[in-house]
Amino acid sequence: MAKAPKICSIGVRLLAFAATLCAAIVMGTSHDSATVLNLKFDAKYSNSPAFRYFLIVNAVVSVYSLVLVFLHFKNLDWRVLVVLDLVVTVMLTSSFSAAMAVAYVGKKGNTHAGWLPVCGQVPKFCDHVTGALISGFIANILYFLLLLYSLHSVLNLFML
Amino acid sequence: MAKAPKICSIGVRLLAFAATLCAAIVMGTSHDSATVLNLKFDAKYSNSPAFRYFLIVNAVVSVYSLVLVFLHFKNLDWRVLVVLDLVVTVMLTSSFSAAMAVAYVGKKGNTHAGWLPVCGQVPKFCDHVTGALISGFIANILYFLLLLYSLHSVLNLFML
Repeated sequence: MAKAPKICSIGVRLLAFAATLCAAIVMGTSHDSATVLNLKFDAKYSNSPAFRYFLIVNAVVSVYSLVLVFLHFKNLDWRVLVVLDLVVTVMLTSSFSAAMAVAYVGKKGNTHAGWLPVCGQVPKFCDHVTGALISGFIANILYFLLLLYSLHSVLNLFML
Repeated sequence: MAKAPKICSIGVRLLAFAATLCAAIVMGTSHDSATVLNLKFDAKYSNSPAFRYFLIVNAVVSVYSLVLVFLHFKNLDWRVLVVLDLVVTVMLTSSFSAAMAVAYVGKKGNTHAGWLPVCGQVPKFCDHVTGALISGFIANILYFLLLLYSLHSVLNLFML
């Protein structure tokens, strides 16, 4: 890989590291409580398996991104990189979509199933989850672009 | 691509076509109703945006798979194939994860958010959704393998 694109790729990887770390921290600190009819109602990320999955994936990917930034300076086999980036992109997509689906039910509810929205009662929790999802989505896009870029550098994609 | 691996790849693509078509049809026909406290309660896939998204993605991918099977006999550029398969894999992963997250809430509920499980009332609907998810998961795995295989054939992945 030439020097300028390599530095650019490391920059994008650092951004992805920041985005995934931010997503994991913001999701991990999401907490709010409300009292409805004298019953205390606690909202935190660990109440939903989808949010737990989102946090774990983003934490793992942030560590991976940082490790890759250091390894990048050595001669890492680009074929390994393509496969690892593919797995990471699929994991990020999966965790974002699952968390997004549950967050949507939390925000809008589902009258057909009798599930009421909870964001009115715990707005702080919902704001945190929204922030984490935005950050996770940015990381997802960055990894998708990194993967396309890695594929391009080995397959010369845009010279069809 | 050599003749035997090409036929094998077409076979896997046909299986993926069957799996996505099956997932779309089974999700599309999921319907059940129950009466709770004299209130009729209707359950169908279109009540949830995640299930609608799952159906649309699987229907689109089934058409794509069939078109690819026919195009495969001509000389399709493998670089285009890799990028298309990557997009399809990401779309399948995303739709499966979103639908799975909502189906999990439907099955187990979420006591913290006050969302009750609905599968006790509408078991036929839940059976259909489960079937569709299994089929969608199989399609997802098949496309992931197809993508790894396409990458392998152009990058020689396993000869590190």
